[in-house]
Amino acid sequence: MPKVSNRGEVMPASPIRRLVPLADKAIAKGIKVYKLNIGQPDVATPCEAFEALRNIDRKVLEYSPSQGLYSLRMKLCEYYHRFNIDVEIYDIIVTTGGSEAVLFAFMACLDPGDEIIVPEPAYANYMAFAISAGAKIVTVPSTIENGFELPPIGEFEKLITPKTKGILICNPNNPTGYLYTMKEMLQIRDLVMKHDLFLFSDEVYREFCYTGAPYISAFHLPGIENNVVLIDSVSKRYNECGIRIGALITKHAGLKKNVMKFCQARLSPPLLGQIVAEASIDTSQEYMLATYNEYVERRKFLVDQINRIPGCYTPIPMGAFYTVVSLPVDDADEFCKWCLSEFEYEGQTVFMAPASGFYTTPGKGRNEVRMAYVLEKDELGKAMEVLRHALAAYPGRTVG
Amino acid sequence: MPKVSNRGEVMPASPIRRLVPLADKAIAKGIKVYKLNIGQPDVATPCEAFEALRNIDRKVLEYSPSQGLYSLRMKLCEYYHRFNIDVEIYDIIVTTGGSEAVLFAFMACLDPGDEIIVPEPAYANYMAFAISAGAKIVTVPSTIENGFELPPIGEFEKLITPKTKGILICNPNNPTGYLYTMKEMLQIRDLVMKHDLFLFSDEVYREFCYTGAPYISAFHLPGIENNVVLIDSVSKRYNECGIRIGALITKHAGLKKNVMKFCQARLSPPLLGQIVAEASIDTSQEYMLATYNEYVERRKFLVDQINRIPGCYTPIPMGAFYTVVSLPVDDADEFCKWCLSEFEYEGQTVFMAPASGFYTTPGKGRNEVRMAYVLEKDELGKAMEVLRHALAAYPGRTVG
Repeated sequence: MPKVSNRGEVMPASPIRRLVPLADKAIAKGIKVYKLNIGQPDVATPCEAFEALRNIDRKVLEYSPSQGLYSLRMKLCEYYHRFNIDVEIYDIIVTTGGSEAVLFAFMACLDPGDEIIVPEPAYANYMAFAISAGAKIVTVPSTIENGFELPPIGEFEKLITPKTKGILICNPNNPTGYLYTMKEMLQIRDLVMKHDLFLFSDEVYREFCYTGAPYISAFHLPGIENNVVLIDSVSKRYNECGIRIGALITKHAGLKKNVMKFCQARLSPPLLGQIVAEASIDTSQEYMLATYNEYVERRKFLVDQINRIPGCYTPIPMGAFYTVVSLPVDDADEFCKWCLSEFEYEGQTVFMAPASGFYTTPGKGRNEVRMAYVLEKDELGKAMEVLRHALAAYPGRTVG
Repeated sequence: MPKVSNRGEVMPASPIRRLVPLADKAIAKGIKVYKLNIGQPDVATPCEAFEALRNIDRKVLEYSPSQGLYSLRMKLCEYYHRFNIDVEIYDIIVTTGGSEAVLFAFMACLDPGDEIIVPEPAYANYMAFAISAGAKIVTVPSTIENGFELPPIGEFEKLITPKTKGILICNPNNPTGYLYTMKEMLQIRDLVMKHDLFLFSDEVYREFCYTGAPYISAFHLPGIENNVVLIDSVSKRYNECGIRIGALITKHAGLKKNVMKFCQARLSPPLLGQIVAEASIDTSQEYMLATYNEYVERRKFLVDQINRIPGCYTPIPMGAFYTVVSLPVDDADEFCKWCLSEFEYEGQTVFMAPASGFYTTPGKGRNEVRMAYVLEKDELGKAMEVLRHALAAYPGRTVG
């Protein structure tokens, strides 16, 4: 039997998905599993999206242009202008989800051995895409004690080598919910400018900022317009994760040309998703506000519930719909597994993402999990009750 | 301005798409352009596909499983059984088009520096995906004089090094239309077995075999079941290139596990496309037969027309809907460009794919183009009339 690639062997299994088989088994046994493990909101997709689907009047479901439909890119352009993101249609390349935007950004910017610096905890799949590109992610730890604020910028600068090609941030942050301040963003800007780095900025959660603090796009930072590679997706803001439509946005002419080669190789982003995404940009303000308010409520409720469980702590997330929680256990990986395979409380259990997968520094985040508040308040309440009982029953509990 | 990757710089622009801006310019000037450059059929997508879209009854367009919807994989499994391809549901991983299947196959099987051997001319994007994976495509030329039959298997064996990890074939072939014989397939099988290589087999055109000769899948070859990586796509057989649904099929347990990591990193293949693909597998036999008969007619007509133009020659393609044509010109790249930018005949011109992009051996295929017979007979006839006039007027014509 021929040998598979080492690249694939060293790639970690997704921390969000690796426990899915255990959850499926629990469900098959009739156990109600509260899924806080993945950013798949339960909120309905807007009616504008479904209407666009019903109104498709085409004879052939054909390839779209490799850079995406012009009409979608035009709409996206208008959308970004609402956030004072000053981009043109020709700066926008439509991708198959934000995932492909990250992959193509890495492929087009980084050569094997090149490095990018990322504050951790970080979205685990950045790592997978870096491995695909043969590049290396170097992390600077942020801490739950400091609410996951940007680590001192000096810590980033210390890690810069001749191989360093960029900084990557996710803002608002998945998994921490942190929203970078203007002061922090300017520190990043100065570093990017000083070393002429790429700034990869994943801003897919921009609609979800809860504290009144401003959302600052990487494109708002003066002087690094040609360094910014914006990663976007319609998945989260219109609750249509399954359509797989994202975007890579750059003003760097050489990078555009380079990214387009990868786009042409895969021919075309999904046509049906593009049609849905274009219609979704016209989603009513009522819908957007209702979704926003729903997350505001859930966030408040969940954070409150978590911090009442003895030994549990989470800082108040400022955006997105995740929060990182420290638990009174030695090893959250084991605890999450145990919840799915050996525990139940009145026929229920809870599915959380162990945070270890969001760190690359060994040992970091071992007692932390990420929770996504993608369920209704009632369900979140029951999930937290289950968690409380799980912690009380867990043999590996450390304090409390 | 930061430097882009060398990987992207060395990647050739798609030979199929690099002339698109010239074609767009010609169209903007009011010139009718006959597009023979790309495998985008004009045949209508089946009504079953549109009906599935209209009947979508979901509240949330959510992520699907990373390996694809179970119901789609089950249907695909039934579909393959019709062709005596003996695979199970768990051997099938749904991908975002055949493109992603090729990319993930390379990523999961090949490490940087690894080599695969491919008969050329070959689908140009294999090269792009190999560059993405850091792997090297080594080619064995087939020739138009021999109808693009498999080159002597000894030519493949000569190229095997410790770095060789696989052989790649496309059958029926894009761009040549060649269909490998049982004798050729057994030669490939023996070589794969002897050196324990992967056999990447792109069989997306299996529905289109015109000569009565049997379609032989790589999975029909006894003894290499664990070496085969089948690449598939619904794009061509149901005329739905835009939905981006393909599949990677393997019985190699380690490879499945490896591919799944790449699948999980990109979360999910497109949901809407999967729904359409699943319904399309139930497309009526009338539709399939009508499409088939249409291509039979076009192929006969086009080949006949081409071979009547002085100095032009194409062998009779046995499958798919492409044929490679030698033209009486020095440089088909220049000729194709000239047709789009400097020529018109009664307000019309023709858009062909220069074959140079399908070869890696320098100088090979310089006087060849690929034509896709994806237009109606009338249009094909007009396109060939335009080509005849273009060749008569072209300053770089070599013979007559």
